[in-house]
Amino acid sequence: MDEKEALKWLADRMPVGDDCYVMDWGERNLLLTTDMLHQATDFPSGTTSYTIGWRSVAVSLSDIAAMGGEPKALVIAYGNSRFDLDPLEKFIEGAEAVCDKYETKIVGGDLDSHEELTVVTSALGEVKTPATRKGAQPGELVAVTGDLGRTAAALELFERNQHDRANELFQFDPRVEPGKKLVSLVSSMMDISDGLARSLHQLAEINDVGFRVTADKMPYTPLLDEITGSGEEKEKLGLFTGEDYELLFTAPKKHEFDLAKFGATVIGKVTEEGVEVVRGREVTPLEDEGYVH
Amino acid sequence: MDEKEALKWLADRMPVGDDCYVMDWGERNLLLTTDMLHQATDFPSGTTSYTIGWRSVAVSLSDIAAMGGEPKALVIAYGNSRFDLDPLEKFIEGAEAVCDKYETKIVGGDLDSHEELTVVTSALGEVKTPATRKGAQPGELVAVTGDLGRTAAALELFERNQHDRANELFQFDPRVEPGKKLVSLVSSMMDISDGLARSLHQLAEINDVGFRVTADKMPYTPLLDEITGSGEEKEKLGLFTGEDYELLFTAPKKHEFDLAKFGATVIGKVTEEGVEVVRGREVTPLEDEGYVH
Repeated sequence: MDEKEALKWLADRMPVGDDCYVMDWGERNLLLTTDMLHQATDFPSGTTSYTIGWRSVAVSLSDIAAMGGEPKALVIAYGNSRFDLDPLEKFIEGAEAVCDKYETKIVGGDLDSHEELTVVTSALGEVKTPATRKGAQPGELVAVTGDLGRTAAALELFERNQHDRANELFQFDPRVEPGKKLVSLVSSMMDISDGLARSLHQLAEINDVGFRVTADKMPYTPLLDEITGSGEEKEKLGLFTGEDYELLFTAPKKHEFDLAKFGATVIGKVTEEGVEVVRGREVTPLEDEGYVH
Repeated sequence: MDEKEALKWLADRMPVGDDCYVMDWGERNLLLTTDMLHQATDFPSGTTSYTIGWRSVAVSLSDIAAMGGEPKALVIAYGNSRFDLDPLEKFIEGAEAVCDKYETKIVGGDLDSHEELTVVTSALGEVKTPATRKGAQPGELVAVTGDLGRTAAALELFERNQHDRANELFQFDPRVEPGKKLVSLVSSMMDISDGLARSLHQLAEINDVGFRVTADKMPYTPLLDEITGSGEEKEKLGLFTGEDYELLFTAPKKHEFDLAKFGATVIGKVTEEGVEVVRGREVTPLEDEGYVH
């Protein structure tokens, strides 16, 4: 099995379908989530310890955001072959910086000797009524927060040895604030961890619906123009590169104005079946491809 | 820095001194903890996937037990080079078995491609008033739950290729039930993850006290007799080998009878300073040695 198949198998055994697990806890719900990142797959050569700390925390905050929740506390397990003060300190600084920005904190952790740098962040959040991945209806709008292709651009900048800019891009903002505002408007929501195309397919499958998105409505980051030669390549990077951690969601049409107000871009609509992309008059299937990480 | 020094440095920056972090949450407190285990250090050759699943969960339940808490939910991050169905299924079975036994459940997780098998378990617990590591007073009793040297015996059995018995020993019972009963009696409590000797030194330092323990009161598992030739070697294995995950605690003398009732063994008393061991009429310092893992 690959990871995708293994996750599918797991989903039949335990409640792992959403970005976080939701626990009924009196008046509000608790949210719990965990993410594993490691050197080879997640941190290209040139990634600073500060960025690694930031990003490790931000991916878990993104899971909380995808349910419309408020992050309350995080624990971090950090495995590395050495525990030199400087990289460890920078790692913690990065992790604390994103915590400060989103008003949460690291409350504990574990250190472990490990050949490869490996970080697992687990986050606890709180929400009154969570947004989940299930609830999309044909006829509704489908939209995303922020911009797409940021991580693709960062990866290219790492390749080009423009490490400062790449690191800056890698320190992404988890969409905690938009998530909290959108939670009462959306019918389904998730974060985009494996690229927009794959996320659309996942959301379509869970809801037994389809999507028709419009190519020229995609909020690609202007950085993609800088790093790509053609529109085709730009679209490929923007649609299929993972780890942008924007929120993807569906909502009834009546909320269109509010969505724009919260910085989201409507990219198409929910249909009965099939995930398709419209380019001018042409409608083609959107491949279920993307990052498996 | 080694792990021990790095942990000390971290403790000055964030609240990582106890087995879990305690969050005030209305009428009760929430507990949050995380643990990283991996092939090279934690799972000797011959450890089954079932045992790996069991043990990964049990170490986090032990942290909850050490605060007197009740486990409510766990998330697991599982990194491996392959996701073959059989080992993954056995891993989950082991993890679920220990959850069932202690009335908790796995509610989510993450899978990640990883060269070395790496498991991080994070647990959420609940407690009315937690036991912490701080509170021991000179004149009190010091005691442990269960028996000592079980992991040392298991490691030796793995060496001898007696894998079935070794795996059975490795599937330890986190002391959740004793922890819940002891919580109202103890003045300080922790779980023994790095061996009794090191844990006594840790508790002494946190509380600015000492301990005098009696060698022939130690509840060594009878298995140590089987695998060792001498009393000296037995004591060494029982005192300095880590990962027994028994609870070590201090309590006022008046609770002596209750402690025995809950299956704990008084091994000595809290003193003003120094960690010492009494053998007959001889009193010698107990070295601050043990597993660093």
